[in-house]
Amino acid sequence: MKPCEEDEEEGRAAAAPGGAGDPWQECAEVAVQLARRAGQIIRKALTEEKQVSTKTSAADLVTETDHFVENLIISVLKEKFPSHRFIAEESTAAGSKCVLTDSPTWIIDPVDGTCNFVHRFPTVAVSIGFAVNKELEFGVIYHCTEERLYTGRRGQGAFCNDKRLQVSKETDISKALILTEIGPKRDPATLKLFLGNIERLLKAQAHGVRVIGSSTLALCHLASGAADAYYQFGLHCWDMAAATVIIREAGGTVIDTSGGPLDLMSCRVIAAGTREMAMFIAQEIQTIHYRRDDEN
Amino acid sequence: MKPCEEDEEEGRAAAAPGGAGDPWQECAEVAVQLARRAGQIIRKALTEEKQVSTKTSAADLVTETDHFVENLIISVLKEKFPSHRFIAEESTAAGSKCVLTDSPTWIIDPVDGTCNFVHRFPTVAVSIGFAVNKELEFGVIYHCTEERLYTGRRGQGAFCNDKRLQVSKETDISKALILTEIGPKRDPATLKLFLGNIERLLKAQAHGVRVIGSSTLALCHLASGAADAYYQFGLHCWDMAAATVIIREAGGTVIDTSGGPLDLMSCRVIAAGTREMAMFIAQEIQTIHYRRDDEN
Repeated sequence: MKPCEEDEEEGRAAAAPGGAGDPWQECAEVAVQLARRAGQIIRKALTEEKQVSTKTSAADLVTETDHFVENLIISVLKEKFPSHRFIAEESTAAGSKCVLTDSPTWIIDPVDGTCNFVHRFPTVAVSIGFAVNKELEFGVIYHCTEERLYTGRRGQGAFCNDKRLQVSKETDISKALILTEIGPKRDPATLKLFLGNIERLLKAQAHGVRVIGSSTLALCHLASGAADAYYQFGLHCWDMAAATVIIREAGGTVIDTSGGPLDLMSCRVIAAGTREMAMFIAQEIQTIHYRRDDEN
Repeated sequence: MKPCEEDEEEGRAAAAPGGAGDPWQECAEVAVQLARRAGQIIRKALTEEKQVSTKTSAADLVTETDHFVENLIISVLKEKFPSHRFIAEESTAAGSKCVLTDSPTWIIDPVDGTCNFVHRFPTVAVSIGFAVNKELEFGVIYHCTEERLYTGRRGQGAFCNDKRLQVSKETDISKALILTEIGPKRDPATLKLFLGNIERLLKAQAHGVRVIGSSTLALCHLASGAADAYYQFGLHCWDMAAATVIIREAGGTVIDTSGGPLDLMSCRVIAAGTREMAMFIAQEIQTIHYRRDDEN
């Protein structure tokens, strides 16, 4: 279990879940309800025939369900919280600007693992993050087929259903299980870099590398201690926002692939159970360039 | 659904599950009971501290649970079926010969996905296959954490819990999701070939490649239609035996990586929903040499 020193500080007790002092408590509760409702829709749609379109590449897929679920989540939130702002995957693909201001902002991936979803490969999630003053306040990720709800609230810990999450304490790459994802770009130079990074980590004697097709669920595995590190180039702020709160509250480190602080709009990330492991990965892997989310 | 022409043939009805005419019905029932019982032990052990040892390489792990579960399964089967023979992962590692004769033979992987198991990564299975006259009769695979039981009986279909399994009908690589596993050898030449094969399939515009860390569960995803192809070098007969029956009974193809018939002892396999997809993979990938199971 992660030590919960924060709980002993004055003022923190009032911000505990359910406490009247948490200004974002209602938002977090609505996020959980919406993630479950969206998850139910996705679970049902998983077995049905789908209309599939492509976005930035032949491997960057979108379905009617992505649009339907995103519209549902945003319409409910807009009605409840009319002054809030939204950054969401399909709205951004349709041309909305992807800019994080100081306003309360919801950062949403309606269906993470769309390629899995299209193939009925049962590793698909809904991800809802929430930031205020550019600081991530809470994250909710729902594993649609296994009905696992991951939540993290800044300063209050991270949970999977009712179980507290705790990252791995591993610092040695030769005892590590590493997670990554391919990313949407598939040109020969990108593929060389992507595979070269896996090669470097396996040559460093990592136990293994896993690619499960959902960044958010891979990051949830990291938060639960089932893997020791995750890195990726080409993911988006809606893949990282909710998971970042969950991992930090589970005691983990989330940084930029350069080794510097996380930049939510940079489309790249390293997450690890320990800072040593994160820095090792940062030194080992080569950068794959993707355009920033806020440049699109 | 797979057409079940066999059910209409005379003589087949008597061999239906539960039918008195199936000489291996009792064996299949015991396999299901043992897989569930082993799965329960593994599920419990997943959260506990483990003593980990290595076998053929630093990435080829074994725990007390692998040994305990294998001993349990074999001791129960030996008492019930004293004339039967056994091929099992840890007995083979300890020096038992890995030879398939005409005798009724159980082919067992007590914990498939040992590296996942060590890391508490929740993708771990028990696999029990059964062959007579060198022909695979049935297979039972139990996903320990998701409590999904996959079964296949020759001529009688394949199921996940109560749901009939049906492979994907995809023939086009550019619409395919592919599964593979790294294998235990990690020398630079092997890694180059392993990653080169992924590169070839991604350059052929496969939607994606997934690596989940359990050959048998990857093969179960293939059987359920959640992926279009699986290939691997360096797996063993106990990784393939049960899954091969399940995939074939779900309508799929299981062949050698050369494109020829499957050789259960060859430590290599391609499985796919369609023969076209399997043959495409066979032509695309380069061979990684592993010693045969029956040469050790």
